[in-house]
Amino acid sequence: MSLKMLLRLGYCGTNYHGFQVQPNAVTVQEKLQDAVQSLYGGRFPVTGCSRTDSGVHAKEFYCTVDIDENSPAIPYDRVPLALNHFLPDDISVYDARPVDSSFHPRYNALGKEYIYVIWNSRISNPFLARRVYHYPRKLDADLMNEAAQHFKGTHDFYGFMASGSDIEDTVREIKYADVKCENDKVIFTVAANGFLYNMVRIITGTLIFVSENKIGIDLIDEVIESRDRSRAGPTVPPDGLYLNRVVYDKWE
Amino acid sequence: MSLKMLLRLGYCGTNYHGFQVQPNAVTVQEKLQDAVQSLYGGRFPVTGCSRTDSGVHAKEFYCTVDIDENSPAIPYDRVPLALNHFLPDDISVYDARPVDSSFHPRYNALGKEYIYVIWNSRISNPFLARRVYHYPRKLDADLMNEAAQHFKGTHDFYGFMASGSDIEDTVREIKYADVKCENDKVIFTVAANGFLYNMVRIITGTLIFVSENKIGIDLIDEVIESRDRSRAGPTVPPDGLYLNRVVYDKWE
Repeated sequence: MSLKMLLRLGYCGTNYHGFQVQPNAVTVQEKLQDAVQSLYGGRFPVTGCSRTDSGVHAKEFYCTVDIDENSPAIPYDRVPLALNHFLPDDISVYDARPVDSSFHPRYNALGKEYIYVIWNSRISNPFLARRVYHYPRKLDADLMNEAAQHFKGTHDFYGFMASGSDIEDTVREIKYADVKCENDKVIFTVAANGFLYNMVRIITGTLIFVSENKIGIDLIDEVIESRDRSRAGPTVPPDGLYLNRVVYDKWE
Repeated sequence: MSLKMLLRLGYCGTNYHGFQVQPNAVTVQEKLQDAVQSLYGGRFPVTGCSRTDSGVHAKEFYCTVDIDENSPAIPYDRVPLALNHFLPDDISVYDARPVDSSFHPRYNALGKEYIYVIWNSRISNPFLARRVYHYPRKLDADLMNEAAQHFKGTHDFYGFMASGSDIEDTVREIKYADVKCENDKVIFTVAANGFLYNMVRIITGTLIFVSENKIGIDLIDEVIESRDRSRAGPTVPPDGLYLNRVVYDKWE
């Protein structure tokens, strides 16, 4: 028998090959399993809410840990500090609580919100290296925001999925999407009931193409309709991408 | 003959053993000399405005480069991008301009402003690892600010200097000093005509001791007067320290 614990955490993905354990690469899941083992003395399953790609960050991430009930009982309010003691300083557990044994951090999520952060200045910011995408030419955030609205709603996003995925149902519902400017940053926020492989990075690349007048804003619906990956913009780097929020209870 | 060029730059010090070149350690000065050599084809002297310690950051830093006049002439407005191309992404040159051959970035400075950033929350911030000092117990920023005012003015700061320095004149003038709270950050700002070895880090440790009631606020003047390092607070880590501004023309 085991007890299921839900952890809320955040991590800077720069030094990791994504969340999910893989051979010959350092991942966040492996670091969590190591920390759990150091604390509880056993190698217990850690299940994440998402597989983030190499170099992608998470401001909010959830995972469950199945803890053998014979393990030492640690009060939930002490678990974050205890785990953080064994974790590297670019991964932090914020809180811990018990959940029903049937809870699954991925399948129970109604959806997720991502942000993509562009450093839009001629000179790069040395404090944001590999935490933003440096794009030196001036972007038109208003035009990008107008274009972003065309992605809202339920569509087949096949044309905005990187190859290499075996997913068959490529219809997703984008709940909201907006682009805003904050000093030297241009930030794209997007929430959906689910995302396809590289979908946020391809949509961001498409919005940049709109700003650069390489795609007309009125053609976006056509690009979606055509399901043709070659008509969408390029896949921007992982550096600017953050999982920002996971929705379990209800959309606000 | 050579031409003297003044660079304004910034760097995240996490991956460097300070500014100044030293054997068997990676430094910012070395990276700049390498970039200058890649761009101009020669190994030219790079002179900094300060020796920052290992792990200390700079939001504003100045250095001069003595460029042999037979080197290729590159317009000053193109120098930053050209140098940044050869620099690692945690060092950025912001601008470049010619200066008089007699100009020295350290000796010509009237003074400097440093900030020390404390992440004052129970849980560390994974995106600020090694860019702040994580202090989990709640600090009293108002009390620390009151204490900081006692350091203002011209004093002998011998008691706030780490050993290992051969400086004889330990009198400095602190122009302004304040502590403020910004969400989960406590930020100490201090400007002076010069700083002794580890002075900002020892004063910050002393302000934390005041908040923790280990030193009475009314005793600060006595600690300064006594010139006794053992009565001051501990030296806090380099992670939270930023050279923030270098004053050449006049104090505002």
